[in-house]
Amino acid sequence: MHLYTQPMLTPGTLTGKTILVTGGGTGLGKSMAREFLRLGANVTICSRKQAVIEATAQELMETTGGQVLAVPCDVRQYDQIENVLSQTLERFGRLDGLVNNAAGNFISPTERLSAKAFETVIGIVLQGSVNFTLAVGKHWIQQNQPGTILSIITSYAFTGTGYTVPSAVSKAGVRILTRSLAVEWARHGIRLNNIAPGPFPTKGAWDRLVPEPVADLIKPESRVPLGRVGEHQELANLAAYLMSDYSAYITGQDFTIDGGEWLKGAGQFSALEMIPDEGWDEIEQTIRRTTGG
Amino acid sequence: MHLYTQPMLTPGTLTGKTILVTGGGTGLGKSMAREFLRLGANVTICSRKQAVIEATAQELMETTGGQVLAVPCDVRQYDQIENVLSQTLERFGRLDGLVNNAAGNFISPTERLSAKAFETVIGIVLQGSVNFTLAVGKHWIQQNQPGTILSIITSYAFTGTGYTVPSAVSKAGVRILTRSLAVEWARHGIRLNNIAPGPFPTKGAWDRLVPEPVADLIKPESRVPLGRVGEHQELANLAAYLMSDYSAYITGQDFTIDGGEWLKGAGQFSALEMIPDEGWDEIEQTIRRTTGG
Amino acid sequence: MHLYTQPMLTPGTLTGKTILVTGGGTGLGKSMAREFLRLGANVTICSRKQAVIEATAQELMETTGGQVLAVPCDVRQYDQIENVLSQTLERFGRLDGLVNNAAGNFISPTERLSAKAFETVIGIVLQGSVNFTLAVGKHWIQQNQPGTILSIITSYAFTGTGYTVPSAVSKAGVRILTRSLAVEWARHGIRLNNIAPGPFPTKGAWDRLVPEPVADLIKPESRVPLGRVGEHQELANLAAYLMSDYSAYITGQDFTIDGGEWLKGAGQFSALEMIPDEGWDEIEQTIRRTTGG
Amino acid sequence: MHLYTQPMLTPGTLTGKTILVTGGGTGLGKSMAREFLRLGANVTICSRKQAVIEATAQELMETTGGQVLAVPCDVRQYDQIENVLSQTLERFGRLDGLVNNAAGNFISPTERLSAKAFETVIGIVLQGSVNFTLAVGKHWIQQNQPGTILSIITSYAFTGTGYTVPSAVSKAGVRILTRSLAVEWARHGIRLNNIAPGPFPTKGAWDRLVPEPVADLIKPESRVPLGRVGEHQELANLAAYLMSDYSAYITGQDFTIDGGEWLKGAGQFSALEMIPDEGWDEIEQTIRRTTGG
Repeated sequence: MHLYTQPMLTPGTLTGKTILVTGGGTGLGKSMAREFLRLGANVTICSRKQAVIEATAQELMETTGGQVLAVPCDVRQYDQIENVLSQTLERFGRLDGLVNNAAGNFISPTERLSAKAFETVIGIVLQGSVNFTLAVGKHWIQQNQPGTILSIITSYAFTGTGYTVPSAVSKAGVRILTRSLAVEWARHGIRLNNIAPGPFPTKGAWDRLVPEPVADLIKPESRVPLGRVGEHQELANLAAYLMSDYSAYITGQDFTIDGGEWLKGAGQFSALEMIPDEGWDEIEQTIRRTTGG
Repeated sequence: MHLYTQPMLTPGTLTGKTILVTGGGTGLGKSMAREFLRLGANVTICSRKQAVIEATAQELMETTGGQVLAVPCDVRQYDQIENVLSQTLERFGRLDGLVNNAAGNFISPTERLSAKAFETVIGIVLQGSVNFTLAVGKHWIQQNQPGTILSIITSYAFTGTGYTVPSAVSKAGVRILTRSLAVEWARHGIRLNNIAPGPFPTKGAWDRLVPEPVADLIKPESRVPLGRVGEHQELANLAAYLMSDYSAYITGQDFTIDGGEWLKGAGQFSALEMIPDEGWDEIEQTIRRTTGG
Repeated sequence: MHLYTQPMLTPGTLTGKTILVTGGGTGLGKSMAREFLRLGANVTICSRKQAVIEATAQELMETTGGQVLAVPCDVRQYDQIENVLSQTLERFGRLDGLVNNAAGNFISPTERLSAKAFETVIGIVLQGSVNFTLAVGKHWIQQNQPGTILSIITSYAFTGTGYTVPSAVSKAGVRILTRSLAVEWARHGIRLNNIAPGPFPTKGAWDRLVPEPVADLIKPESRVPLGRVGEHQELANLAAYLMSDYSAYITGQDFTIDGGEWLKGAGQFSALEMIPDEGWDEIEQTIRRTTGG
Repeated sequence: MHLYTQPMLTPGTLTGKTILVTGGGTGLGKSMAREFLRLGANVTICSRKQAVIEATAQELMETTGGQVLAVPCDVRQYDQIENVLSQTLERFGRLDGLVNNAAGNFISPTERLSAKAFETVIGIVLQGSVNFTLAVGKHWIQQNQPGTILSIITSYAFTGTGYTVPSAVSKAGVRILTRSLAVEWARHGIRLNNIAPGPFPTKGAWDRLVPEPVADLIKPESRVPLGRVGEHQELANLAAYLMSDYSAYITGQDFTIDGGEWLKGAGQFSALEMIPDEGWDEIEQTIRRTTGG
């Protein structure tokens, strides 16, 4: 059994802390939430999909014995975020950490997108992260309390990439939000960092992003120098380190965990240029079918 | 007279081309528009301030003899942008270049800002640039016509900065929009680049951004290694180069013109410049004594 | 007692591994060596100063109960490095990790330096790291054995800095050595990463680099957003993570642990932190007056 | 005829200036020298190949009517560089600009290289650029005279690349030399910038670097988003701009002119991993045959 599939930090590392994970109902968000619980933290998860987060909260409480609060919210609505915060404070008495993990993405040639499509992704990814960061930061500064924020970005926030441009520009904004506030809010005891994950497949999510006819063009295994996709536990270990006081001297930084992918070929999705125009018609239909959109 | 205050390119370099400059009514936008006109281009300027852009159009036509169209528009409204484009095509018959220059900014501790304040700046700076880029790019791809886009960003889009965070995150998004589409749209003959200007004061704008009590804390002259602010003509020369076919092999890149400002701050030991020459003699002796060298 | 002054990983994490730390006789190299020993690794340290590394080896063995081999060597001499490697293999039977930590630095205006001074620093820092990386990498590839390399760089390898230019150019080279081989040698199972530490004072070393009359100009406490220098243990924890299999999916990356230092300098408006709260009230009023907002 | 194959700046732009181009006997160095001459500058070229630079000097003087001095030198020998400088001052009375263009490179899996091979490339590319920059900078500072330095780097200095690692680390060092001294030497009126060119083939040079069996794996036309290699004139135009006073406010920056190549796929040579071991034996023989080495 590989060490990297094992929990790294000692149980109790996060005892007494409460961490809010946006989009924590599925995928990497859920895996991070599970690890924080294992380390002793209370966790709030939130998402627009109430049924999903409630089921996840139930499952996580049963498997870890920790406390999970699930609050439905649209990350683009600031008052709903204030509600997530106040419910968290009511339930757990405090908030110590925030993970900006909620995201939205789809592949498409940019000229096929509407301005509205950009607005939606910018709203969820960038404004959503701004909203949570602002609400939580104002609370901490007012309480004169330290706190830690982790944002999940992507390596194409460094170099850009074709075919997922709304996501690229939004994640680039989040990246600089972290860098900016790491300096400005340091005097309030607030730390902020980014993780840029490579391919960490979640049943469902990757298939939705990359439908069958496309998947072969961007197979992670051939793109990633280390020759494999990531395990959720190794990302959860890194996230737990950055949320814990072990990383107390680290702020404003990017932590890329991608098997070397971006250094080998910047612009993760650029191979999609091989798809002809009629291919994109088909792909759009596949995506609509899969997402029920 | 310094060469850098003089026009660089040969008149006629842009003859037959039409260039759209967002926010071209004042400041650097106006200076770039003037240079494009001098080089033979037709120019459209746009802004929400109809009176301002109409006066500027009049002035620029009188002083350069070129053709200027002024169209009022809110860069956040996609249909208004389509209107700017269609009026430009009606008046000049074609569009060859776009300069994303419109911006909005103010200084403030971030915790004093509302989510709405972020939304406004993200809307103008990031979504505004997306809107124009999308409208113009769709037009070019449909017409099977090449084109060139230049976006005005800022060096704090690289590293972030406190106290103007909405602007920093938005400009970071624009930067990556450029990088992403430079690769994706290269096959359509579309080039995109960024200019990151340092301090180029415009009567009025800088005073508004940086009111009296603050100005001394961030005096450009003491922050800029080359010891002066920039002249509008030297930025206009760089912009004209990047909009012309002389730069046909350059795409996706950042061009920083700031007298070395952003690198100075980052360099750990740069404060040592305060040590006078005789100080270094003493230091050398101290080092020799300590190291026994 | 702060968590960050405590060891992070579980004892036994590195059991069975041998790690070579260049320049491990003093400072951060010694602190990393101690942590690797605590986690169960055997350690080789090397330096030109035989007496120093032998005393350190003795001390570390007594305090940790682990095994330490001290081999004198000049990192610029490839045959001496092969000797360090073969003595390590003889003593411990294997080598699993390398930490390129040996360095040399001094402050001086660049025009006061000789070409020879550059050659010396480039020789120790860049060629020295190349030499160890090459010797160890050849060994691993020939043995068809995986391995991990960590290089200690500095944040001024990103942006440069005046007054320590030979160090800056050399560390920049090491940084790209890591990025290059992370991709090229991934298929051999070799991972490489960089740590860029901020100020982690070691009695003696910092005083030598920064003599009394200079120290006040670059006081870390005022330059570092988090307001303190680093503790050796927190850097040792990060190094241990990157040398262990917990970080198996991370390669080619920079890990900056500097309290936000380098980002503060680069951010144009960071000096505004000097403005007190009531100052901002006044500024807001000024802005409103000026903009009619 | 494309505009980008035409000279951009007005003749006379560099009149009265003297520019030293290292490695100016062939390739891009020769093309830049020709453009500087066309713009009115005197030019010194230097290289170890005396016959080559003398023939080039003759040809350039005949075709441009300008003055060219050819001085043999090994860029690794500081006294030979001082000789180039003093001969230039004797012949032209002054020196105003330096282009660090001399380079050395070859493709090979890194584990097949000796430490000596690294030393040679680091010596030529990094120490050679340091040597010239130091000699010329000391002269300017002593004379209290401004000056401009341009260094030719490569985009893989940003991200690294396999298979040309000695070149990658050296160019990364040069890049940071520029950034460091741009800040430190700004007060002496010295500007420094980098150009990172993509594929600009020169008869001979590219074939030597990339022998037949390899060429197809890294064909520039398919790697470059803009779909073509560069023309020497467009790089010469950019270099002339950066050496002229039109760019007086630009210092410490990278100017990438590569058709978007590096953003599409960082690590220019990473496709070479497809070559099997026995392939490299053959390639080494081809290189030896071609270079007579």
